[in-house]
Amino acid sequence: MKEVEGGICAPKGFLASGIRCGIKATATKRDLALVYSQQPCTSAAVFTTNVVQAASVIVSREHNKAGKVRALIASSGNANACTGQAGLEAARSITKMIAELLKISTEETAIASTGVIGVPLPTTAIEKGMAELAAGLAPDGSDAALEAIMTTDIRKKYTAVEFEIPGEASPLRIGAMTKGSGMIHPNMATMICAITTDAAISAAMLDKALRRAVNRSFNRLTVDGDMSTNDIALVMANGAAGNAPITSDGPAWEAFANALETVCIKLARAMARDGEGATRLITVTVSGADGEEAAAVLARSAAGSSLVKAACFGADANWGRVLCAMGYAGVPFKPEETSVTFSSAAGSLPVFKDGEVLPFSEETAKKILLEEEITIHANAGNGTGAATAWGCDLTYDYVKINGDYRS
Amino acid sequence: MKEVEGGICAPKGFLASGIRCGIKATATKRDLALVYSQQPCTSAAVFTTNVVQAASVIVSREHNKAGKVRALIASSGNANACTGQAGLEAARSITKMIAELLKISTEETAIASTGVIGVPLPTTAIEKGMAELAAGLAPDGSDAALEAIMTTDIRKKYTAVEFEIPGEASPLRIGAMTKGSGMIHPNMATMICAITTDAAISAAMLDKALRRAVNRSFNRLTVDGDMSTNDIALVMANGAAGNAPITSDGPAWEAFANALETVCIKLARAMARDGEGATRLITVTVSGADGEEAAAVLARSAAGSSLVKAACFGADANWGRVLCAMGYAGVPFKPEETSVTFSSAAGSLPVFKDGEVLPFSEETAKKILLEEEITIHANAGNGTGAATAWGCDLTYDYVKINGDYRS
Repeated sequence: MKEVEGGICAPKGFLASGIRCGIKATATKRDLALVYSQQPCTSAAVFTTNVVQAASVIVSREHNKAGKVRALIASSGNANACTGQAGLEAARSITKMIAELLKISTEETAIASTGVIGVPLPTTAIEKGMAELAAGLAPDGSDAALEAIMTTDIRKKYTAVEFEIPGEASPLRIGAMTKGSGMIHPNMATMICAITTDAAISAAMLDKALRRAVNRSFNRLTVDGDMSTNDIALVMANGAAGNAPITSDGPAWEAFANALETVCIKLARAMARDGEGATRLITVTVSGADGEEAAAVLARSAAGSSLVKAACFGADANWGRVLCAMGYAGVPFKPEETSVTFSSAAGSLPVFKDGEVLPFSEETAKKILLEEEITIHANAGNGTGAATAWGCDLTYDYVKINGDYRS
Repeated sequence: MKEVEGGICAPKGFLASGIRCGIKATATKRDLALVYSQQPCTSAAVFTTNVVQAASVIVSREHNKAGKVRALIASSGNANACTGQAGLEAARSITKMIAELLKISTEETAIASTGVIGVPLPTTAIEKGMAELAAGLAPDGSDAALEAIMTTDIRKKYTAVEFEIPGEASPLRIGAMTKGSGMIHPNMATMICAITTDAAISAAMLDKALRRAVNRSFNRLTVDGDMSTNDIALVMANGAAGNAPITSDGPAWEAFANALETVCIKLARAMARDGEGATRLITVTVSGADGEEAAAVLARSAAGSSLVKAACFGADANWGRVLCAMGYAGVPFKPEETSVTFSSAAGSLPVFKDGEVLPFSEETAKKILLEEEITIHANAGNGTGAATAWGCDLTYDYVKINGDYRS
């Protein structure tokens, strides 16, 4: 597997576009994106589990039931959530218009939105921009589309990989882009994740691969403990690579699913690193737990603790808070057999071993924790389950960004 | 029921003391407290549900099994948590010493500790201070004892009430003090709550009253989502008021339990207001939920959301975040029938009604949200259950305090 250029347009047959239609306040920022496959697709999607669901989530879920979405229209600056019946009608009207422009059926379209909750969507602006948006579709449109879904994101989060599958002469590609930096918590995040692939794969096997990948990536990501109303991760597969269609388990599916997982984990890490106000990426690995899911719960609890996050901001090796956060995670483990190690590019420092305090140099600890990427490893002394979660530190800037987000 | 002076020494027969023995770094700060009843007591206690439990929690739980604790020794500056076998031995040794000094049995003692996790308890300092501590017991010692359990607390949190119970000529009293300002989340908090009463009541009925009161107060309090290893709420009842002992349900128990609940709610509110770095107390009331517990879950989720908290800091009426936090709370409700109102001493402002956005004046919203005490009311449109939760805003100072707590 190797990384390639081109983002969501790296797989054959995908075009993208991103324009400014006028949703965002800043007059220079793009806010409307389109990703489109020239060929029909199979599709799979995962949505927020929040009881409060954005209109775009409701509509996209309906459309994706047929598993053949090939166009995603996404806007930023307004979440179109808690906007009642009018919001739902706006989402339906927008997908209808884009389907007409692209000469595809509405069930081949999906819609995503992100931004402030509870403000009526400026539908007219979007509708006015749609012809320009569709006309702008291009094989090099990945970057413009990505810009148009960003809100408080600072870094561009995208990737593309090329990989082989057993029995096929030609390689396949997966491209992906994502937005999301706050309101990010298991499960999912305030995220829009658009994934494209030129693999030929049935909607059912695509769905299975996406669920496993999301569970091991975006569902192990936490920025602030808030789970959004708008989360969507959509994968569209157009088969343009010409492989024998993947329709069941086996080496070909495994190769595809692993590539998809790699892409999703890369983006999940990038989202944690780009968490609102974040200065550090925190990776928490838990081993010795009673199964993978228990390990994930423990790891997420530590990565999501405000106190652990604030300590990381201060480069303070306050490992007691890690233990404490594991302690209220809700799964059993043995504190008296637990060990904790902090590490980074600057070194590795065991601070707690089999339930007993280890003396350590504060100076060494500081050096390790001042790095931009920190790993906290805990062995829970309770089994063989292991999992990794990603988070970021809690900073002044997080408070600043979210203290007056609407202004 | 009326408030009275005297804190934990307000009920007859209780003495208290607070000294500096040398646990805290600052040379002027008290760090060792003792609360003592001159008469034997019945007792009840609630402890943290964290898997990781401080040595003091383990020891106090053992001692309280007999339900006759009459002395609480509490220290601040060190949590004695994650300190292994040595920490447990230290807690046992301290309670043994204080029992000897007071000429009571060890099972009549409880111990509490708060402060940094994972640092060996300076047992020698505590043991050296213990004679002075016991000698200092006085009917006006409430304030000194309270100071000695405070860590990052800014305000002193204590109260005392006098109340009547049916069929008794003389009034009864309950006094209480608490510490806790960070690592506070349902259930319980990084809190030490010592409650005294001169009521005569059986340990079983005292336990029942305490559990109800804690469930409706401290368990509905959230500062940062972290649940501590050290939480303890202990009530000691010495019967000095001379009432006919309360040994079963009935009007007398109800009167006592209501007074206890009032005391606990007052302290819970004070803890939220004194949350680390907090500038505002946020009260979230949820009505129209499917039962009291569902209402409590929804209210706590909104009060605990980092995004809601940051918005309150910025006096930003971002009510969508309230809806969103209710949405991921894990209990069903009907967003399309939900209403939200912000209010404070400066007025009341409905912002969302039966699932639809209400236009509102940003200026009015700002005026309401700039008050020190804000109430967010949500009607979930799903039943008749109601509950209240308390929290505080998320501020720069929270990050500052917790970014380098150990220094």
